[in-house]
Amino acid sequence: MGKALEFEVLHQDSGTKARRGRMRTPHGTVDTPVFMPVGIQATVKAMKPESVEATGAQIILANTYHLMLRPGSDIVREAGGLHEFMNWHRPILTDCGGFQVFSLGHMRKITEEGALFSSHIDGSRHMLSPEKSMEVQNDLGSDIIMGFDECAPPDASYDYIARSQARTTRWLERCIEAHRFPDRQALFGIMQGGFFRDLREESARDIVKFDLPGYAVGGISVGETKEQYIGVLDYAPDLLPYDKPRYVMGIGTPDYILEAVERGVDMFDCVEPTRIARHGMATTSHGRVNIKNAKYERDFGPLDPDCDCYTCRHYSRAYLRHLFKAGETMSAMLLSEHNLRFLSKLSEDIRKSIEEDCFTEFKRDFYGKYYGSAE
Amino acid sequence: MGKALEFEVLHQDSGTKARRGRMRTPHGTVDTPVFMPVGIQATVKAMKPESVEATGAQIILANTYHLMLRPGSDIVREAGGLHEFMNWHRPILTDCGGFQVFSLGHMRKITEEGALFSSHIDGSRHMLSPEKSMEVQNDLGSDIIMGFDECAPPDASYDYIARSQARTTRWLERCIEAHRFPDRQALFGIMQGGFFRDLREESARDIVKFDLPGYAVGGISVGETKEQYIGVLDYAPDLLPYDKPRYVMGIGTPDYILEAVERGVDMFDCVEPTRIARHGMATTSHGRVNIKNAKYERDFGPLDPDCDCYTCRHYSRAYLRHLFKAGETMSAMLLSEHNLRFLSKLSEDIRKSIEEDCFTEFKRDFYGKYYGSAE
Repeated sequence: MGKALEFEVLHQDSGTKARRGRMRTPHGTVDTPVFMPVGIQATVKAMKPESVEATGAQIILANTYHLMLRPGSDIVREAGGLHEFMNWHRPILTDCGGFQVFSLGHMRKITEEGALFSSHIDGSRHMLSPEKSMEVQNDLGSDIIMGFDECAPPDASYDYIARSQARTTRWLERCIEAHRFPDRQALFGIMQGGFFRDLREESARDIVKFDLPGYAVGGISVGETKEQYIGVLDYAPDLLPYDKPRYVMGIGTPDYILEAVERGVDMFDCVEPTRIARHGMATTSHGRVNIKNAKYERDFGPLDPDCDCYTCRHYSRAYLRHLFKAGETMSAMLLSEHNLRFLSKLSEDIRKSIEEDCFTEFKRDFYGKYYGSAE
Repeated sequence: MGKALEFEVLHQDSGTKARRGRMRTPHGTVDTPVFMPVGIQATVKAMKPESVEATGAQIILANTYHLMLRPGSDIVREAGGLHEFMNWHRPILTDCGGFQVFSLGHMRKITEEGALFSSHIDGSRHMLSPEKSMEVQNDLGSDIIMGFDECAPPDASYDYIARSQARTTRWLERCIEAHRFPDRQALFGIMQGGFFRDLREESARDIVKFDLPGYAVGGISVGETKEQYIGVLDYAPDLLPYDKPRYVMGIGTPDYILEAVERGVDMFDCVEPTRIARHGMATTSHGRVNIKNAKYERDFGPLDPDCDCYTCRHYSRAYLRHLFKAGETMSAMLLSEHNLRFLSKLSEDIRKSIEEDCFTEFKRDFYGKYYGSAE
């Protein structure tokens, strides 16, 4: 295994554990650290693939849970796979579907076999198991696929987390067995264990034995405090192999990204940049901007004077405010493009700072500007 | 007057009154006959200007009524005009605002002065008069502006239409007086008169006296039958100068366009292509397609095999159906782009057929294909 993905650490920052790396996948190269935009239903919301690419995105995420229910992974397979179906020809990572299923609360039941759940679309009953997750992700044809895990709630007991974490390891073994295309789809394992160091150590030890092409630190972006998040990151990445990519799922704010990178994480994703865009919010180098604000009514300057994105090059805050107030789709289109560019540019700047051994200075300067003038 | 726009008829079809013409405006040349996409609120819904341009659109429309209320024409003026505000650097035509105001029904009152109305946004009271319409359109800076007219309902009495038509002529005289930039914005007059030939003749005679750069045939796309529509077009365009562009407002279906072109009309616009796109409908060379239809679930061919648009080059019917069913904005984005390309391509084909003196054959062949296999 491992042929589907090659990874190398090109350089480590002299003052921190931040790494500058490079992944090779069947659909191209990805420079790390990297932010990955999310296209839940085989489309990054309100953006053409060319616009996503123009933001500097190198790899995007799609969701197993959503696509297995609609349109159905068999249809995507018959279309020639997800890349062809959605017209995105760079790398794609798919999640395992577990997170969405476990979020269904009383609509799902977890057993050793997997998770039995009711569809949020039509209430129909489905089983998502390690084997099913692999079948769906094999159908989708994504470059990186994720092992089926349970992401336990942050307030779960030690005993519950211990049992859940051990089951996730057993599920991972079944995933490896069921995965049909290890030569062209790289399977990542997910470390669990909540906020208990001994359970994290146990989880890491057990999954690292499988010598997979990459690993994720799971269960630390689901309602925990920032202190808990950093607490786990202080030791968890070091429990994973140095020469494999490390992924933290579901983080998309600059501070969560910077703290993770500093501790040796290479990959991260989040729906936040496109979600807040639809609510008229933008992330800029000077902090958050709420475009609905009346003070932008006659503000003919760009959203972010330091940004080189399509939106900032062509449109004013006054126009963006008008679009949002008028309920125009173009508002979400333009703010999404800016917000994704912001996180791609942050990733580029992070990579450059690591190459130049000045990640710590970069992070300090970024925070000064970002928090110094936020609304 | 007339410097803002130059027009010439390059060729007339040998068998019909169809004309192949060219307009020169401050923001570029427009080949006619031409379909103009509509960007009501300073954006063609769900499309970037680059995508609109990629469909072959040469000129777009924006709405005086909507922009005077939101964001306010003073803001657009301060932004540097509509071209700058919305990042569209080709020609723009604005309507006079009358049609929307008169559609408000009991929320408006017409007097010799103009129309007093309540905003559909917040109920605030406004007066739209010939002078106000010119002020707003001067603020917007569109290349072609329309005289303020009353578009009377199709079931209005002879006496009502007679009075309304005469008042529209008096309003046009006030527009000419109030228009501040005749050197860079071409003011078109609108012929009214309902379905009464003597009133159409009277209206045409009175407005043609002003020697304006262009004229529209008004009031024939507001709920009349197709027979009534063609009935007026059989004589009305001939009442207008041969060497000035002729415009029929609010038409966007292939049959209405072809019948108008055959009778000597050069310009037309409609919200329909982008509106039906948002409801999952497409216009193709083989008739209408309802993308929601279950038969497209595994249809991996393009929306229209004869189309060269972005959507047809990159996506399948199965993907478009998935996007619509999943409620994704991308559905409206892709169907709008196709539908606009369809009408631009129709305009291109019409122009070519006139140049080659075979408009009648073209129309016959088009109808055969379009109606031969419609859903």
